[in-house]
Amino acid sequence: MTSDHAHMTPDEFRRHGHEVVEWVAAYMERVGDLPIVSTVAPGDIRARLPDAAPEAPEPFDALLRDLDEIVLPGITHWQAPGWFAYFPANASPPSILAELVAAGLGAQGMLWATSPALTEIEAHVLDWLVDLLGLPAHFKTAGGPGGGVIQMSASDSTHLVHVVARDRAVRAGAAIGDLVAYGSSQAHSSVERGARVAGFAHVRLVDVDAVFALRTEALRDAIEQDLAAGLVPAIVTSAVGTTATGAVDPIAEIAAIARQHGLWHHVDAAWAGSAMLCEEQRPRQAGAEHSDSYTFNPHKWLFTNFDCNVLWVADRAPLIAALSTLPPYLRNAASESGEVIDYRDWHVPLGRRFRALKLWWVLRSYGAAGLRAHLREHMALAQELGRRVDAHPRLERVAPVAFALVCLRHADGNDATDALATAINAHPDLFVTPSEIAGTRFVRVAIGQTRTTAADVERLWTAILGGADGAA
Amino acid sequence: MTSDHAHMTPDEFRRHGHEVVEWVAAYMERVGDLPIVSTVAPGDIRARLPDAAPEAPEPFDALLRDLDEIVLPGITHWQAPGWFAYFPANASPPSILAELVAAGLGAQGMLWATSPALTEIEAHVLDWLVDLLGLPAHFKTAGGPGGGVIQMSASDSTHLVHVVARDRAVRAGAAIGDLVAYGSSQAHSSVERGARVAGFAHVRLVDVDAVFALRTEALRDAIEQDLAAGLVPAIVTSAVGTTATGAVDPIAEIAAIARQHGLWHHVDAAWAGSAMLCEEQRPRQAGAEHSDSYTFNPHKWLFTNFDCNVLWVADRAPLIAALSTLPPYLRNAASESGEVIDYRDWHVPLGRRFRALKLWWVLRSYGAAGLRAHLREHMALAQELGRRVDAHPRLERVAPVAFALVCLRHADGNDATDALATAINAHPDLFVTPSEIAGTRFVRVAIGQTRTTAADVERLWTAILGGADGAA
Repeated sequence: MTSDHAHMTPDEFRRHGHEVVEWVAAYMERVGDLPIVSTVAPGDIRARLPDAAPEAPEPFDALLRDLDEIVLPGITHWQAPGWFAYFPANASPPSILAELVAAGLGAQGMLWATSPALTEIEAHVLDWLVDLLGLPAHFKTAGGPGGGVIQMSASDSTHLVHVVARDRAVRAGAAIGDLVAYGSSQAHSSVERGARVAGFAHVRLVDVDAVFALRTEALRDAIEQDLAAGLVPAIVTSAVGTTATGAVDPIAEIAAIARQHGLWHHVDAAWAGSAMLCEEQRPRQAGAEHSDSYTFNPHKWLFTNFDCNVLWVADRAPLIAALSTLPPYLRNAASESGEVIDYRDWHVPLGRRFRALKLWWVLRSYGAAGLRAHLREHMALAQELGRRVDAHPRLERVAPVAFALVCLRHADGNDATDALATAINAHPDLFVTPSEIAGTRFVRVAIGQTRTTAADVERLWTAILGGADGAA
Repeated sequence: MTSDHAHMTPDEFRRHGHEVVEWVAAYMERVGDLPIVSTVAPGDIRARLPDAAPEAPEPFDALLRDLDEIVLPGITHWQAPGWFAYFPANASPPSILAELVAAGLGAQGMLWATSPALTEIEAHVLDWLVDLLGLPAHFKTAGGPGGGVIQMSASDSTHLVHVVARDRAVRAGAAIGDLVAYGSSQAHSSVERGARVAGFAHVRLVDVDAVFALRTEALRDAIEQDLAAGLVPAIVTSAVGTTATGAVDPIAEIAAIARQHGLWHHVDAAWAGSAMLCEEQRPRQAGAEHSDSYTFNPHKWLFTNFDCNVLWVADRAPLIAALSTLPPYLRNAASESGEVIDYRDWHVPLGRRFRALKLWWVLRSYGAAGLRAHLREHMALAQELGRRVDAHPRLERVAPVAFALVCLRHADGNDATDALATAINAHPDLFVTPSEIAGTRFVRVAIGQTRTTAADVERLWTAILGGADGAA
């Protein structure tokens, strides 16, 4: 800052901007060499910050210095090539640069009229993705009764469809307290949370089969019991790729049950939806074309930095009905013409930034063929790792290799499995998530970080072998 | 991209990053010269995009070219110094650079353990802001039972407190269908929408007084009528700075009514909260220290780019109770120790990016004194504009000058006022929002864009004078 009160000038922005670009580029170069997991103790970071905000401006150098000295020690490096934990949260270079442009433009897309490019590029790119994922044309805004919208997270989308399904049931005469939401016991926590936040008092997480997919018989039984008890089944969520093991629910059968009983059918493909760019994966979600809503996260496995969740609905009318408001200060000719989309009516927030830009830039920078090549490479690496696990006398898979997720355990049981996870994570350049299902401990290996290559999976395999021997 | 399938290398990122920094710096230099409002027609932007996503990668040059050729014509320039419309959505240079760093790190803050710096810097900076805004110490995470969290928008925060208030009332035995939410007829649309999304069937928007502040008598009457009808009053939202005219509700009296009837009391200071950095403004929100929750948007008037909304709660326990989930794959030692904050339990989304970085950088780059100087300048400019309106024979204020908002009309009535707004907005470098309250049309002038100076307000005043004469 040139004076106490002046804003940073464009020239100062230019200079500091170049410094920040260099910092981020250097971070990309060294992220593979940093210990992935932060080892600070609770309170360590706060203890290094002053008790009060500074009264006087600080120079930009101080911010950059603290990025290295205070921030970096407290970062767990999700962008490291040895990241096999949770699911990936990819931030590819083109998406990072698009985020910079979007922040620089600082435009709001709450209405079409407040920056038409934000709305039209979003609507258009999400229509592209309908085709790329092999979803039905009625999910498109162009021509279809449905449409896509970018939300912050799959949790937001899943919450929102519970609200829409709830309002539909209430309009049909049901009391909120009688509504029931369904998913499997392996559904993401956002299903139960979204239902509870939407006011559902009854959430049924029904039984799964041997590969952790929803048992349709259990769903039918639950619905029939609830109907017999005078309750009102309202919505069921199917998973394409559960978080624990990547299981895929029997979508077509669930779709039929939903249709029979008048339930809203939501498909949660938060992570695995990206795999549907590859035509050979699509049979796994047959039936999704009959769903009422479908969500997936380009910010997980499609190289687009957080936040970028996509929600498609087969019919946008009930969504907009649940959310529409039109105070006088938002009235404008374009909205009144009915010719435009006003995305403020498609989610809880009113304001919205230009998140479509990064998705557009990712699709164009990689091209659909480039994205498919990366996805197929991750899936092939997972298949190969699965084969090695199967061939190893002391290791077992706990579930089929799903997309790019391998779930394995030590044959000696839970303690040996936890020891295996600990041994792998003792390597500072590797990180996996230990988990548990029905009392069985296991290690999740999610392959899909932007910079992960076959060599990184080899390093992981060496660590697994070392851990398997050590734990025996 | 060097090949069809390769990721952009760090060196390519470096090169393109510098190009993007230059583009954004040049945008800052020329944004004051661009026509503020996009004039594209519905469908113009989409018509320029190909029908399908590209199969092959496109060079970065093509993305930059389309930024100028396709995107810019569809942008309405919220960062222009002649922006007096809606409320400002400021994107100051330090906040833009912090967004770049956050995207580059690509870390997730869903748990403390997944990147401790994200959580600790957020908690700490929001504690700083408690002091900066003169709010009570129990809103702090350090020591207090409450705490602050960054959400996407005030709409999210307002929705969320309706959920928490709803759950509290339901736990106490009420049926959701009987709950009532209150605000004034001038409350932001997010109050009604948040309540409806949370499942409230009854929303009372009670009458306002001559300066558009909630009439406490009307609130008391509404509560008593609802109680007499067997309904359950659950939550009331007070406004500090309504969207239409910047009115401030009688916070202390509403707090007393809320306490008497056991209502959750939420304070919505989305825009005007920033003004509370200036001690002389704080008497206007006396009583807010007794509220159950308080929200304001640094992304409006505190020079921090969207999204950055702050929600404070006096007691974090019921918030966490409403949202907490702990699937096995998220279990970790730090969470189990109880020593850390896991922000995933403070909002609907699970994932979260490093939004605290930009708030930290803004507070340090400007210093509290620098921020106050800018806020006071905006408020002084508004007072001066108000005086000129009062002194003009053909212009009238429709409300007191509120913080940095001036609401004026033409003395000849609604048609002349609409003509005045049209005349102002005919200047390509000025933009105001026409609005309406109780049948009276008026022009909102919100002063507070990062680059707005006294000279810009002079330009606006000249346009107002021209419009007032022309419309007469």
